[in-house]
Order: sequence, then structure tokens, then C-alpha cells
Amino acid sequence: MVNWFWRRPNRIVVPRLKSRGEDAANVNRVDLAELTPGLLAYLGQAAYLQLVIFEMLAQVVATAPSTAAKEATSRVAALSLERHQALAAEITRKGTVPADAMALYSDRIDRYRTRVTGRDWYETLVASFVTSGLLNDFYRRLAAGLADGVAGRLAVVFASDDGHDLLLEQLRAAIEQDPRLASRLAMWGRRLVGDTLLVARSALAMPQNGHPDEARLEPVFTELIAAHTRRLDALGLTA
Amino acid sequence: MVNWFWRRPNRIVVPRLKSRGEDAANVNRVDLAELTPGLLAYLGQAAYLQLVIFEMLAQVVATAPSTAAKEATSRVAALSLERHQALAAEITRKGTVPADAMALYSDRIDRYRTRVTGRDWYETLVASFVTSGLLNDFYRRLAAGLADGVAGRLAVVFASDDGHDLLLEQLRAAIEQDPRLASRLAMWGRRLVGDTLLVARSALAMPQNGHPDEARLEPVFTELIAAHTRRLDALGLTA
Repeated sequence: MVNWFWRRPNRIVVPRLKSRGEDAANVNRVDLAELTPGLLAYLGQAAYLQLVIFEMLAQVVATAPSTAAKEATSRVAALSLERHQALAAEITRKGTVPADAMALYSDRIDRYRTRVTGRDWYETLVASFVTSGLLNDFYRRLAAGLADGVAGRLAVVFASDDGHDLLLEQLRAAIEQDPRLASRLAMWGRRLVGDTLLVARSALAMPQNGHPDEARLEPVFTELIAAHTRRLDALGLTA
Repeated sequence: MVNWFWRRPNRIVVPRLKSRGEDAANVNRVDLAELTPGLLAYLGQAAYLQLVIFEMLAQVVATAPSTAAKEATSRVAALSLERHQALAAEITRKGTVPADAMALYSDRIDRYRTRVTGRDWYETLVASFVTSGLLNDFYRRLAAGLADGVAGRLAVVFASDDGHDLLLEQLRAAIEQDPRLASRLAMWGRRLVGDTLLVARSALAMPQNGHPDEARLEPVFTELIAAHTRRLDALGLTA
């Protein structure tokens, strides 16, 4: 399966940021359909990343500073498991054991997880918020390149509630209570973007000529970052 | 709410074990209905304990030694969250915020959780298996003492799959692969029973005369332990 991917672990695409208006007008200008990997490669990675997002959220639940925060974030953890199970069900539907499809990508994704693990509740909460936002956005776009049936079912999966608003509420309350958190969390959020775009990028299919078309990729990643920036704006943080 | 409980943190009921046959013939001889606390006390504790069971399972998922073990145990974690949400929904139904109903018991239950946290994946897996088995059994029996409507709904909740078989499968495979685990896990399992019966016992309602009727309680706990012994037997471990 290795040749589905090109790997350049030392390079990250760092797109130029466009103005928000320009971006909003062009959301569907470039899509990822032609870069979508084979179905099992897509599902194995997406399902395993969703498990990793769940693990981050479970850590958020376990270390929550109050029963109310624990209760709210446990609902987000449940949603992340539902999403994982929907992806695993698609793997089963193809006649493959979900664990087998995921195991091919577990080492790389586990290394990613280590890099984006926060030092405390707040950082883990931001990590869950930022990485699930970026990755859900990315895999939602990528799904459009799959066969019609599964593309339709996955569109429903990715349109379902991912608990974003509940996390936003927790983060807003935390920053309101301790405004000094804002700069630390903004810095941490910036660090997460690079690693997350790299893990997303390595999921893309090798183009036929064997070389990634950077010029073609750039606007895709620019759009992912623009959506990320809007999510951080909603928190009052600078992306 | 404190006077719903009597507290004797330094004493544990240690029932004599009867023979299996005797026990099986008398499963319903004593029930916990008269000892059932008020509805919100019951729900607050049961819902928070279910969250703690989820946290243990999430730890099992995060530290699983293989992708297959991670996938299997994540399904159990999802079931534990569903059960928690069903209990939280009953709290909401009574017009109370779930976090408020749970917060009264969080300190005591968090201390319990610390005591039953395993040192590695195997111990955390056994802890999830043993404590969820005992606590689900206990709260299922206690639910019979609640008002008819909620008692019926909770009977359905407690009859739903709690993932016991999936955990059993993981534990069996682990012990088969490394038979030296058996004695360590059996000893750890014994340690868990005392703490778990204590946290269960502190949930019972104060009898009208103000004194716990130890003679009445003993057979109840004997039955809980007999069911626990059968679960460990299924693993080939001595309870």
C-alpha cells in the first residue's frame, strides 16, 4: 500500500493566506476528488484518525476540571466514536476487518498523536478542537472523490454533529475565566496546524506522473487553513 | 443529600461465600428494592460511576497493544457512554442538570477510581471488566426499587449489551498468550472487589431505624460476589 502515498516528512505545505472574503467566495474552486486514495486506504486512515481524536477527547473527559465539563465533553467523545464506527462499518462492508485496514497507518498516526498531545486539560481540549476541525474538513472533501454510494453515505457521516459547539463553549468559558490562557492556546493551536496538515497530506493519492502537483495542492490547503482560522476567530484566538 | 447514606469508610462487608448451586437457586431471595435511595441520588451516582467506567475503558483503548484490541475495546467504550447517556437522560427528565446530580458524588467516586486504576493495560482491562460487572449488577438490582416507569426504562438500559463478551475475549487472549498474567490479574481482581463493594454499599438508603441491617445486607453482597466469581471463572481466574 506504500505506493499510494508520497512521503516527504520534512516538508510541510505552508500556503499563503488569502483574505477571508476571497476564500469564502471560492470554497469549491478546487476539490480533492482526484487526489482521493483508494477506498480502503481512505477508510483505514480516516477511521484510525477518528479513533485518535476519540482518545484525545477521552483524555479531556478524564482530566476535566468540573463535573459539568466532564459531562459536556463526554457527549463529544460519544459523537467521535459514532463517527469512527460509521467509518469502520464501511470497511466491514468492503469485506475487510477494520483493524486490518487501520493497522497499516497506525504507526504514522500514533507518531502524529504524540506530537499533538497537550500538556494539560486546556491544551488537550484545543488539540481536540483544532485537529478534529481540520481533519473532518479534509476527509469530508476527500470523500467526494470516492465511488458514488460510499461518497453519499460519508457525506451524511461528515454532516453529522461532531460536537464542535460543545468544545467551543468549554474553550470560551475557560478563556473567559483566565484570559492569560489565550496567548498560550493560540501558540499551541498554531503548532498543531503544521502537524495536522502533514498527516492529512500524506493521505493523498500519488498523481499519475509520480509527482505531487504543489501548485494544485496549495489552494486546497489554503482553504483548510481559512476554515481553521474562522474556527479560532470564533474563540477570539488569532490563528 | 448526605443523610441518604450512612458512611463507614473503614468497613467492608465481607460475606461468606456459599456454594454456587445454593446461590443459583436463591438469586432473587433478597432484593435491594427497600434499600434503593431517592431517584436523583440513585441516578447521580449510577451516571457518574458509568462515566468512570468509560474513563477506564478509554484508557484501555488508548494503551491497547494492537489495533485490533484498540478497535474491539473502543466498541465497549461506546456502549459505556450510551449507558451513561441513558442515565443522564433520566436525570434531565426529572428537571435536573445531569452534572449537578452527579457532582454531589464526584469526590467520593473519584477517590474510588484512583484506587482501582491499574498499572498497565492488562490491569486496567481487568479493572474495567470486574468493576463494570459488579456495578452494573448492583445498580440493575437497585433499580427495581424505583418508581415503576423509571424502573422499567432502567431495566431495559441494564439489559442492553455492556460489552462484557468483548472484554472477556481480550482478557482470554492476553492470558493465553502469557499464562503468567493469570496469578497477577487474579490478585488484582480480588483487590478490586473490596473497593467496588464499598462504593456500591455507600449508595444504599439509610434504613428507617437509622442502622444498617448487616444481616439483611450480607446475602445481597454474597450474590453480587457469586456473580463476580462466575465472571472470573469464565476467564479461568480464581476469584
